[in-house]
Amino acid sequence: MARARVVIVGGGFGGFTAARRLSRAAVDITLVDRTNHHLFQPLLYQVATATLSPTDIMVPIRWGLRRQKNANVILGEATAVDVARRVVVLDGGRAELPYDYAIIATGARHSYFGHPEWEALAPGLKSIEDALDVRNRFLLAFEEAERTDDDAERRAYQTFVVIGGGPTGVELAGMLPEVAKPMRRDYRRIDTRQTRVLLLEGGPRILPAFPQALSDHAKRDLEKLGVEVRTNARVTHVEPDGVHVGGEHIRARTVFWAAGNAASKLAKTLGAPLDEVGRVKVTPDLSLPGHPEVFVVGDLATVPRDGGTFVPGVAQGAIQEGRVAADNVIARLAGRPTQLFTYFNKGDLASIGRHRAIANFGFLQVTGYAAWLMWLFIHVLYLVGFRNRVSVLLQWAYAYFTFQRGMRLITNYARQWDGTVAVGGKYLSADAELAVAKQREAVGSR
Amino acid sequence: MARARVVIVGGGFGGFTAARRLSRAAVDITLVDRTNHHLFQPLLYQVATATLSPTDIMVPIRWGLRRQKNANVILGEATAVDVARRVVVLDGGRAELPYDYAIIATGARHSYFGHPEWEALAPGLKSIEDALDVRNRFLLAFEEAERTDDDAERRAYQTFVVIGGGPTGVELAGMLPEVAKPMRRDYRRIDTRQTRVLLLEGGPRILPAFPQALSDHAKRDLEKLGVEVRTNARVTHVEPDGVHVGGEHIRARTVFWAAGNAASKLAKTLGAPLDEVGRVKVTPDLSLPGHPEVFVVGDLATVPRDGGTFVPGVAQGAIQEGRVAADNVIARLAGRPTQLFTYFNKGDLASIGRHRAIANFGFLQVTGYAAWLMWLFIHVLYLVGFRNRVSVLLQWAYAYFTFQRGMRLITNYARQWDGTVAVGGKYLSADAELAVAKQREAVGSR
Repeated sequence: MARARVVIVGGGFGGFTAARRLSRAAVDITLVDRTNHHLFQPLLYQVATATLSPTDIMVPIRWGLRRQKNANVILGEATAVDVARRVVVLDGGRAELPYDYAIIATGARHSYFGHPEWEALAPGLKSIEDALDVRNRFLLAFEEAERTDDDAERRAYQTFVVIGGGPTGVELAGMLPEVAKPMRRDYRRIDTRQTRVLLLEGGPRILPAFPQALSDHAKRDLEKLGVEVRTNARVTHVEPDGVHVGGEHIRARTVFWAAGNAASKLAKTLGAPLDEVGRVKVTPDLSLPGHPEVFVVGDLATVPRDGGTFVPGVAQGAIQEGRVAADNVIARLAGRPTQLFTYFNKGDLASIGRHRAIANFGFLQVTGYAAWLMWLFIHVLYLVGFRNRVSVLLQWAYAYFTFQRGMRLITNYARQWDGTVAVGGKYLSADAELAVAKQREAVGSR
Repeated sequence: MARARVVIVGGGFGGFTAARRLSRAAVDITLVDRTNHHLFQPLLYQVATATLSPTDIMVPIRWGLRRQKNANVILGEATAVDVARRVVVLDGGRAELPYDYAIIATGARHSYFGHPEWEALAPGLKSIEDALDVRNRFLLAFEEAERTDDDAERRAYQTFVVIGGGPTGVELAGMLPEVAKPMRRDYRRIDTRQTRVLLLEGGPRILPAFPQALSDHAKRDLEKLGVEVRTNARVTHVEPDGVHVGGEHIRARTVFWAAGNAASKLAKTLGAPLDEVGRVKVTPDLSLPGHPEVFVVGDLATVPRDGGTFVPGVAQGAIQEGRVAADNVIARLAGRPTQLFTYFNKGDLASIGRHRAIANFGFLQVTGYAAWLMWLFIHVLYLVGFRNRVSVLLQWAYAYFTFQRGMRLITNYARQWDGTVAVGGKYLSADAELAVAKQREAVGSR
């Protein structure tokens, strides 16, 4: 009998874990990803703030699976899953991968709440490319501030707005002043200590997934770092020179997005019921309703938990789901019943700047330096692959003690002043210019 | 009396050295570069072959000059020098920098011998962006080879052509098989040991700047690594699926360019006599004829040497010229006569693969492992900034002993299959497609 073909789409925490979990199964695995790397997404904000190098937080997927002889890796973008024919379509039809079992784990992208034109103005943090875009804009803003002779313009370049008060927004906002301050010796005309960072959260408090007391603590910690935290602050417009929040216009040349997620478009091709942000409503064993041979895990799935809540879109959720999906493939092959997914929360962490964090383990809540040490320990522990662990520790140690940020690389400046690439909120592509112009018109005509 | 304004254009070896040399002079220095980093160009080929990270071989220019209070750094592209009005024009007219003295050191770009359409098909190695482009194509070729079911296509993806047998071409060609071989465990369908690398040199021997015996030795070393070295091999066409050399068509999906340089376009705006590749013919004190207040150094200048030859376009030449130009600015300010430039050759080195090199010190010629140790020592010694030295040594040591290339990052794959970016010789932009189509027509109609 031919071995069962298992196609895994996505090499993030969910897909990569599933592939590893199947290492001893008598199946032929094909893992497809549109990047060649398994990425440690929780540390992307450190790449974005010029603290870590992109290669510190990734391993090539095929390197990670090199000893697992039942696994093939394909670099390709899955553009559809045809559940009727049981094939994954690659690169818009360039190739097809037939499967007996499929595990779909393509995650989420940003959602701009019906304003796709904001994407060019306010990048988020999901991929290496995103992080390098944020890093370029962050560093370029200081260069422009140093160059300009216009005081208002200089202040706009020294103002950074982070939209969204979840863990990503908090971690990014907390790092910006910490990285800016020690750069002051490098500049002659600007004082990088005057960097203004605003964190705008639409809801009543930041980090709503944490208990109120920890949210409050995080807010105070951010304010100690100089971050202006505004809650109930709904952004109505994002423009090249700032944002509108309520009736106020905040001038800022650099805006980052950490507000909303939408499931990968691949979800729509599965023909299954989706929730309001496009995530697949899976059955309790993580399979697709009506298709017990297809499992959906990670940020692409919405998985109910006890008490009417859902499994949060974090690494540990995706890892646990990937493991169960793999086990359920094995169960089906053996003719055993599948197991139902239950989420075990090991604890939630968010770092705040360079040496503070909050940690919630349910029975125990930790803040400040102690929480940061826990955060550091856990993140280093989970980083995939020995090389990265050592290298990241060295980089961190170096950055921590010397503040000499060796990662401050700006790329493609020439393309920027040519006006062909949108960076720093100023040099926009023709498309983005158009979108912005239309938006301005709409604002003006109210 | 106001302090003299010295504008330095370019933060490479020539410009950066000049700025450092003026650290105690009573002048106001403005250094302009279109990147924010001083780059250790001789090691770019290691970034291109996924051995070092981009941040390992660069330091931010303003970080390098942070303690030099008489120096300002501006991120900007000098698009013209108006020697009559004594201003440097930035970003196509967005700003102007007036100067009393100028040191122009914008270096060289690639020259495609009248075939600018080859640039999209065969990137070279001058900037970080170039190196990342080469790295993407190099790594992507293996991914495509692994995916394809067509044997001829697979061989084309496993064939790499390096055009140009100077030090850059030799160093790049020598590393390709060395990096490919240890990747074999990562792939299931291809054997990365079967990677075919061709080094095509138009002249009668590779490394013509070295003595014949060392050239021959380098050729044999390359052949031991599996590189096919062809001399008197003039490329007549570069196409997405290969190159034409003589009457032969070599199928290869990936082509790299190390054949020709042309001086930066800025040279043309100086109104001075240029040589055939656009370099400025400077006077013996490195100043512009008729403009003793403007100095030109590095790859942008052509500087005669004893015996009818010219100073080679290497780091030590640019460094020595940058130093003399700075000293001559000081001399003019003090009303002293300027010094004439004389080149002191400390020796020439070229590495061949992972543990061989050739070295020529005139009185002494070294080959093999001993030369490689010299190469290693000298390169680490010259790397600017302590952090980079330590980090690079660690990366090298790690790569050398484990062969686990942690740098294998491919970016922007999705853009590639969409056909909007030219990578791997297959996915071309509309412009490049057009250029190639025209070229094919021309070939077909002969």
